[in-house]
Amino acid sequence: MHSRRLKIGVMGSASGPQIEDPVARKKATSLGYEIAKRNHILINGACPGLPHDSLLAAKEQGGLTIGISPAFSEYEHINEYLSPAGHDIIMFTGMGFMERDIINIRSSDAVVIIGGGIGTLNELTIAYEEGRPIGIITNSGGISNAIPHIVEELCRRKIPPNMVFDDDPVKLLDKLEVAIREYPLPIHEDGRVKDMKQGRG
Amino acid sequence: MHSRRLKIGVMGSASGPQIEDPVARKKATSLGYEIAKRNHILINGACPGLPHDSLLAAKEQGGLTIGISPAFSEYEHINEYLSPAGHDIIMFTGMGFMERDIINIRSSDAVVIIGGGIGTLNELTIAYEEGRPIGIITNSGGISNAIPHIVEELCRRKIPPNMVFDDDPVKLLDKLEVAIREYPLPIHEDGRVKDMKQGRG
Amino acid sequence: MHSRRLKIGVMGSASGPQIEDPVARKKATSLGYEIAKRNHILINGACPGLPHDSLLAAKEQGGLTIGISPAFSEYEHINEYLSPAGHDIIMFTGMGFMERDIINIRSSDAVVIIGGGIGTLNELTIAYEEGRPIGIITNSGGISNAIPHIVEELCRRKIPPNMVFDDDPVKLLDKLEVAIREYPLPIHEDGRVKDMKQGRG
Amino acid sequence: MHSRRLKIGVMGSASGPQIEDPVARKKATSLGYEIAKRNHILINGACPGLPHDSLLAAKEQGGLTIGISPAFSEYEHINEYLSPAGHDIIMFTGMGFMERDIINIRSSDAVVIIGGGIGTLNELTIAYEEGRPIGIITNSGGISNAIPHIVEELCRRKIPPNMVFDDDPVKLLDKLEVAIREYPLPIHEDGRVKDMKQGRG
Repeated sequence: MHSRRLKIGVMGSASGPQIEDPVARKKATSLGYEIAKRNHILINGACPGLPHDSLLAAKEQGGLTIGISPAFSEYEHINEYLSPAGHDIIMFTGMGFMERDIINIRSSDAVVIIGGGIGTLNELTIAYEEGRPIGIITNSGGISNAIPHIVEELCRRKIPPNMVFDDDPVKLLDKLEVAIREYPLPIHEDGRVKDMKQGRG
Repeated sequence: MHSRRLKIGVMGSASGPQIEDPVARKKATSLGYEIAKRNHILINGACPGLPHDSLLAAKEQGGLTIGISPAFSEYEHINEYLSPAGHDIIMFTGMGFMERDIINIRSSDAVVIIGGGIGTLNELTIAYEEGRPIGIITNSGGISNAIPHIVEELCRRKIPPNMVFDDDPVKLLDKLEVAIREYPLPIHEDGRVKDMKQGRG
Repeated sequence: MHSRRLKIGVMGSASGPQIEDPVARKKATSLGYEIAKRNHILINGACPGLPHDSLLAAKEQGGLTIGISPAFSEYEHINEYLSPAGHDIIMFTGMGFMERDIINIRSSDAVVIIGGGIGTLNELTIAYEEGRPIGIITNSGGISNAIPHIVEELCRRKIPPNMVFDDDPVKLLDKLEVAIREYPLPIHEDGRVKDMKQGRG
Repeated sequence: MHSRRLKIGVMGSASGPQIEDPVARKKATSLGYEIAKRNHILINGACPGLPHDSLLAAKEQGGLTIGISPAFSEYEHINEYLSPAGHDIIMFTGMGFMERDIINIRSSDAVVIIGGGIGTLNELTIAYEEGRPIGIITNSGGISNAIPHIVEELCRRKIPPNMVFDDDPVKLLDKLEVAIREYPLPIHEDGRVKDMKQGRG
């Protein structure tokens, strides 16, 4: 199915203390560089912070980059959301953060989580609920080391086979490419319920 | 502003082990009963589980109840989402769980979280990001006792003054009514950023 | 299926010359009165103009009324959208006019069109595409007499059997109640395509 | 503002008699070819019909193409929506036709309408309401010659200065590029109301 170039979404801290952490920033940069080097398309929320570090690295490497903005216009994006606009392509959804997060994830063949606070946790729950392949860059601050704890201990759900973990962005992308190939997406919206008519928590 | 009847959203476990826990179920029932008794409107996601326990209690008490369904039609709601349809009013959004969650929260003047797994965590992050008054019924299983841990320790954000906690539904509603009165909602979508032009994490 | 009270959506001119026309306003008032008298729930977009005339009449008759607002907050609704807020229940979608229109229609078991400009034409196309029962109050200005012309001559599509016409709101509601009973809704979003796997224009 | 490549949305008949008309198909092909030749990005709804004729021409010319699909997955897109998937990039919104139409338009710096039935009329009303630059390819069947009639005579609204008309796709793109440059977009969602706090019809 994936004769088109893969789109890898990079989601993570856009503000807060995590975006100053040099270790997390270095991983974000390495991630963006590697996405471009593999000829994948980098998608992010057109936000500042760690996903922006990845964007800059992908751009430097000559990669194709797409931003999914919560804003309606470039003016609103820059002046009210105070967000960067260096992507090759920006989709101005006009739908605000919460619906933007949904489109962001569905536009990505797989999602990489790096660092991350409440906004990133929102994206993680969407990606999880919708069966999207997810790669977690561990040791990148925020929620990055707590996801099995949140999913298994707090929410009492399972880590799905297409959720992979590594603290090295290169190895993570290797694992994620396998997950994309081996675990097909649900067919329908809410496919985990509707494709098979089971429950949801 | 609130001359209209208050709408209280009840969100929590719709499947998984939490919905069998007798303590959680009793709290859900007491919550629904109390919402109706205070002449508030009960809103839920038209799902099974703990929010449905609240619905049944509110109905028994003669309360007005609204369900925000992910399904497009009553047929899909019942036969594919396997969801209950005893509400006075059901909005069939046709938008699936994720967008439904957004509408669910925005339709509620305040949100009560009871038990809860990944889907509820999604709703919590939306309500948090959008500044909605939130009441947590503690000791109701799932994520209910872990929210300060998630918000403060993992996400490194603050518990806002309009997020209140109690393990007694009656006392929780008392606190929540104060929070609704005293802390006005953001004006705009993404108001925490756009009303004041600050960052977001 | 419809043991719940029917929800009748009233959509039409919210601004422009149509909202000053005394004939259209009288029909809108009669429509709202009749919806309430039949114990149906009146839904509108929480906008000014003809749908607001219907709202006022339904309220006077003691009917239950719901507004689906494009705004995020009551403050934005009143002060920026300059819209009325006398409904029993208002859903603040925060989604703007265009997505609000979709929710408006899906929340209504049937839609009545009165007068109407571009915004109403948007709602008509949604209701048509999604197979919703539609009642047109003819001789109410705007697009109200041109719908067969638009659908059949310009768009070269058919008037479906659940689209009914009358210049008398009382007779129109009679016809619409028959249409609701006799022509079941599509099951899924995009059901006209997906329920039967056919094309779309 | 437009240092990024322009994105031109092509919207029009995806089914019905219009897609068999050789004149319309030739214009659609010429349009797609010209968009690519000018180094603009072609966006369409990832649908069959006239927008697909444009896509094929843009691809042949080596242009970059993006599809905004109503489906959640490639499988659903191809097998249930029966839609083509030859684009360089496809966004699987999972949101169905109606919300897809909104994203389609907002993703495009300007929209070209060719032929068109009810679905296209839906897109036209969105683009009009949201102040998007619109180019109409006249003499391409469907609603293409009736838009001033619909807007001015039926809806009693004005043709805005950034809506342009030509039956020659090359000349139309010339006019549209001027409209994009000279008439800035509204800043906010519902900007025609909220940027200036005026009414809406």
